[in-house]
This record gives sequence, C-alpha cells and structure tokens, in this order.
Amino acid sequence: MISEKMKGLVNNNSVIREMFEEGKRMAQEVGAENVYDFSLGNPNVPAPEKVKETAIRLLQEEDPVAIHGYMSNAGYPEVRRKVAESLNRRFGTSFHEDNIMMTVGAASGLNCALKALLNPGDEVLTFAPYFVEYKNYVTNYDGVLKAVEPDTETFQPNLDAFRAMITEKTKAVIINTPNNPTGVIYSEQVIRSMADIMREKQEELGSEIFLISDEPYRELVYTDAVVPYVTKYYDNTIVCYSFSKTLSLPGERIGYLVVPDQVSNQEELFTAVTIANRIIGCVNAPSLFQKVVAECLEEKADIAFYGKNRDTIYNALTEYGFTCIKPEGAFYLFFKTPMANEKEFVAEAKKEHILVVPGSSFCCGGFVRLSYCVSYETIVNSLPGFKRLAEHYGLKAE
Amino acid sequence: MISEKMKGLVNNNSVIREMFEEGKRMAQEVGAENVYDFSLGNPNVPAPEKVKETAIRLLQEEDPVAIHGYMSNAGYPEVRRKVAESLNRRFGTSFHEDNIMMTVGAASGLNCALKALLNPGDEVLTFAPYFVEYKNYVTNYDGVLKAVEPDTETFQPNLDAFRAMITEKTKAVIINTPNNPTGVIYSEQVIRSMADIMREKQEELGSEIFLISDEPYRELVYTDAVVPYVTKYYDNTIVCYSFSKTLSLPGERIGYLVVPDQVSNQEELFTAVTIANRIIGCVNAPSLFQKVVAECLEEKADIAFYGKNRDTIYNALTEYGFTCIKPEGAFYLFFKTPMANEKEFVAEAKKEHILVVPGSSFCCGGFVRLSYCVSYETIVNSLPGFKRLAEHYGLKAE
Repeated sequence: MISEKMKGLVNNNSVIREMFEEGKRMAQEVGAENVYDFSLGNPNVPAPEKVKETAIRLLQEEDPVAIHGYMSNAGYPEVRRKVAESLNRRFGTSFHEDNIMMTVGAASGLNCALKALLNPGDEVLTFAPYFVEYKNYVTNYDGVLKAVEPDTETFQPNLDAFRAMITEKTKAVIINTPNNPTGVIYSEQVIRSMADIMREKQEELGSEIFLISDEPYRELVYTDAVVPYVTKYYDNTIVCYSFSKTLSLPGERIGYLVVPDQVSNQEELFTAVTIANRIIGCVNAPSLFQKVVAECLEEKADIAFYGKNRDTIYNALTEYGFTCIKPEGAFYLFFKTPMANEKEFVAEAKKEHILVVPGSSFCCGGFVRLSYCVSYETIVNSLPGFKRLAEHYGLKAE
Repeated sequence: MISEKMKGLVNNNSVIREMFEEGKRMAQEVGAENVYDFSLGNPNVPAPEKVKETAIRLLQEEDPVAIHGYMSNAGYPEVRRKVAESLNRRFGTSFHEDNIMMTVGAASGLNCALKALLNPGDEVLTFAPYFVEYKNYVTNYDGVLKAVEPDTETFQPNLDAFRAMITEKTKAVIINTPNNPTGVIYSEQVIRSMADIMREKQEELGSEIFLISDEPYRELVYTDAVVPYVTKYYDNTIVCYSFSKTLSLPGERIGYLVVPDQVSNQEELFTAVTIANRIIGCVNAPSLFQKVVAECLEEKADIAFYGKNRDTIYNALTEYGFTCIKPEGAFYLFFKTPMANEKEFVAEAKKEHILVVPGSSFCCGGFVRLSYCVSYETIVNSLPGFKRLAEHYGLKAE
C-alpha cells in the first residue's frame, strides 16, 4: 500500500524502534540514571540567553502579522543580508542577500540543493564514514550516493580513491566537516587538493560538479583548528548551515543555504533552490526564528561543556586501551572496536548499559560512534563500564 | 545544469517575478495605497493574543533544551495527544496521539502523505479549480495529477465526471474545503456521495484509494455551514491541517497530519509519513510552535474582519453585475469574467490598479480569484475601479 521506495525504510525503522524499546526496557530495569546512552546527537547545552531575550522582545514589540507572516520563499531579505554580512566579517567572503536562502535546518537545505541539481541516475559522492541520511536525501531525487572508502588512520578524505570515483555521472560531492561521526576537521590542504581534483575533473569531463558542504558543526571546535570556508577554494560550492548545534535549537529547524555568485548560472540555481524550498512543502524557514537567529549570529551555546566531556571520555578510553582519533570538533568520538564486526562490541557494551552506534550505520564497520552531548555525570559514571569492556577484550594502553 | 524537473518551474517563475515587478512599478508610479492587490493569500489579521502570551510564557518558564530540542519525528507526544483530544471534542472522532503527526504546515504534510503513498505513474485526482501547488507536490513523487472538470454553477465537485476518472492507477484524491479559490464548502451530501463512489471503486478495482483532505481553511467559515470532518465518512482518509490561517501563523510553518486507525495498515502508513517527514529534511515541526499551538487549539484569529470584507466586496461586485458564488469560507472570491479568456480582464483590471489572479492558474479559465485578506480600505477604495470595469464591459445587475 505504501510506496515501494518507503517499504525498505519502514522495515528498517522497526529495527531502530527495537533499539529504542530495548533502551527503555533497560532504563526500567536498572533506572534511567544507570543507562549510559551515547547514541543520540541531541544538544544538551541550553540555547544562549540572547536567543530567549530576542524571541521575547520580538514577540512583545513587533507586529504579529510581520513576525508570523509569509515572506519570500528565500526568507526575509534583511535576515539574509545579516547572515551574509556575518559570514563576510568572519570568513572574508563577499556574500549578499541573494546568495542566502533561509531553510528548515540543514537537512532541508540539503534536500533543496539536491532537488535543484539531480536528474535520475546522477551520482553523488561522499566520504565514509558519513551521516546515513545522505543516502535518503540523494535517493529522494533518484540519485545514487557512492561513498569513498575511509582512511581509518586519519579519517581525512582519501583523495586518490576520490579522484578515481569521479565520472561523467558525478553531479555533486557532499562533505561534512567537522565530521559526524569522527569529529575530524578536514584540513585546508585537503580542501585545497579536493578542489584541485574537482576543477581538473570538471575540465576533463566538461561537466559541472558541485561541492555541497554540510556544516551544522562549524562552530563546535575545541582546538585552534580552523574550519576552512569552502566557497573560497572552489567556485561550484553550496554551503548548508544549521543553527541546531551552534545555538542549541535543533527542534526549531532553522538554517540557511549559501549559493555564491561564483557558482555557474548562480541566478538559475538560486531560483531553483528557492522553488525547491517551496514545493517540497517547507515554503519558508520558520519566520520568528529567522528573525531571532539574525540577532544571534555571533552567539554560541556554551561548548566548553562539550569540551570537558570530550577530554574526559577521550582520556579515559585511550587510557583503557581503546584506539581513537581525538575529535577536534562536533560532539562525537569514533573509536575502533577490538573486532572487525563492531556489532559484537555494541552488544557487549549493552551489558554495561552503555549504548553506542555501530560504525556500519555510517558505512564504516569496525568502529562505533559515541555522542558526548550528554551530562558530565553520564560520562563519569560510564567509565567503569568502559574499563571492564577494555579488560574483557584484553586491551592495554599503548 | 539544474535538474530537468526544475527547468520548467524556473522558467515559469520568471513570469511570476515579472508580475511582482510590475506590481512594484505600479506602486512606485501611483503610490502603494492606490494599488489594490488582491493576488495574495496572506492573512492580515494578527494572531490571537494567546499565541503571544503562550510563546512568551514557554520561553520564560520552560527549560530551553526541552522547548528547542529534538523530539520524535512525529512531534511531541503530549502535543499530539492534545490535538487528538481537541479534534475528538469538536468532531466526535476517537483519535489518539498515534493518529497525529505534527508537520511543517499543510504543504509539508501533503508532501509527506504523497511521498508515503505514490509510486511513479500513480494518479492523483483533484477537482478544478484547485491550488496549483498540488501539481508540483504530486510531481515531486513522479505521480500524475488529473483534475476533474468544474461545475461552474455551484463549484461543488462534479461527481459523475469524478467516478468516470477513477481507474486502477488512481492512488489518491485531494480535496480542499473550504476551497481555494472558490470559497465553497463541500456539502455533507457531496462528501457522502464521494465516499460511496470511492468505496465502490476500491471494491471494483481491488485497490486502495486515499482521500487526502487539505484543510487550511477549516476554521474560516462565515455562515452556519458545517465543514464535514471527512474521516467520519471514508476510512482511507488523511487530513492535512495548518494553523497558518486559523491562528494567522503562515510563516511559522506549523500544522499536522491525521492518519486515523481506520486507514488500511495504519501503523505502516503512519510510520511511512513519519519517515517521509524526516527524510524530506523537515525532521520535525518547529518545536516551540508545536507547544504554542497545543495551548491555542480552541483559539481563532478574528475572522469577523474577513467576513466584513467578504460582504462588502461580494455585495458590490454583484451589484455591478459580476457573477459569483458567495463564498462561505476561506478568504477568496472567484468571479466570472465577461469573456472566456480571463487574462484580458486581468489586463484591463490592471489599468484600474486592481491585481487579481487568472482562473487558469487554478485550471479554470473564464474566472479570476480575488483574495479579500486585505485592509478594509483596500476593499472600499477598489470599488470605483470595479464599477468602471463593469461599465466598460456593459455588465448589469441581474
């Protein structure tokens, strides 16, 4: 009865529901405080105070018809101008309002970009491990997502493999840095080389290849590492941004798309993403929160909290003998399991009431993802369990 | 460079932009107050005071992580329960939270329903005149929208023509009552007969045919007419609701989908629409406004304002000799033009600085749509222009 495309997704969903139900059963048995759920990427730091103040002020002072009304499908012009100006200030770019479309989060922005670009059969490349929804977003428009094999030592993109996979069918490349699930930031050198390869291939194939940069974690960085602003390295770039993590507003669904002037046929593409926003049914990004984020563009949730969690869990896990790259950004830690089939480890961890996500969910088996956007107590109280797991597998610190 | 599917839409968009630019030029020439723009369906009555109070109270009193956070893709369970209870109270239904999915407006709800149901080539029927976006929504999933010819006397659905158009390819039927663009409410008798035909055809063809009821105007009714609650007449019904008009919140993108227990394989379909909500990139309906509308389910913007506009413009137009059905709901008036090609009339009206939308945009030539969600002054000041138009065409009151 439901569409063929949805059938596989509905079946798969029952697996997810099973996991969720299992977590609930576990919480009932041993108490929620004794379950260490590291499976969800849900920010647990409150939004900055200025978000609340701005929202209340707008509600109190502005005309309700204006703050809750329709506007252009691309968003309020003055909001888009403020976003452009903030980017220009911070990254030395030269955007203006017609480069910015406000979106229902980055997920919707990605859908608008892919809908605007893809014909059936077009290929989209990404780098494993990757956020599993990319596959669904690409399949929505009958595209084919292909993943470049990971370099499991550095988790920087494997550029030789990347070059070899670009064909005349390649329409777009999705990158995500800081990365979910690894926490790795792609270095400037990598972005530069990636751009060189793509330019070279565009010329060789006579095609247009778009770099779609999914950046919900851009502001979640714990070191002095710089996250390169990708439009400066490659012309055919579209940036998908979300305020979900930076301002801890994931439920409000607010973000934006950047389509720079340097993109081929920019005006046509910008019109296309705007129409896509309308006809996939979003129509526009939520109006009040467009105006709220426009006043909070230099704000950031207190990510020192995530930083402390990161240090604590990373130091403990490596001390116990687990192997992992120290994440520089986002709020995920991706660590190697003692066996190739990481699902065995996931099952064993459950005995310690520790919930983590198998790497195969990100197209990278032999690893698991731990989300450290949890309370510090959850981190600390989970450590004995991780220690016992390490001992169980005979791990030793290097 | 952009996808084939988008090319036609982008070209068409330049026509819309041209119209918009023309309106701007006109406003510059004669002053905005002398342009009578009846082309947009943008509510101009403020949201009820309780919307503002509730939003401010939630922002002040609740935990920001809870009000701005992720929840189930279907929405907050307590919000869905409150929506179900409100429907049950008002319409004698028996919904529960697992019948309700909160959506990014009705447009997104329609997309979720169609994505969940349609295979390529499936047909969706609707009744002319109809909201032009239906075609785009259906085409998003490679379905084919077919319109039943209008009965231009009553603008109630032409049920004989409807019956004849249902085939084994028919997967769904979209209705919209109170109707955009006619303002007509489908009578209970019509809904009952439509349901009979669909049941009969389901049996004859051995298929499932879904009735999708798009109800953004449900609460905008100016007479004692009753808008039948369609789930009570036909089992395979999905309701798409929006708070855009009832609470004057069109920019906030908040609505819901009803998938009753009586739908075939309800659980599977509900899971499918929930996954659709996630993967088209909405993820969930905006979180703060989910909680706001849950407290405002019995509220309504002051529609007496629209009612006064309706009476004034209807009485004047009929007095001048125009032919139209008196709208019972929504905020549109659909009137017959003195010639078959209504675009001539649209052009002539522009000379009076009156902007209306040609009926062919709703698949019903020979008529134009006038949106009366404008200021009362706009209505009153436009009347001499309408009078001159009537005289120009030699119209006389019947």
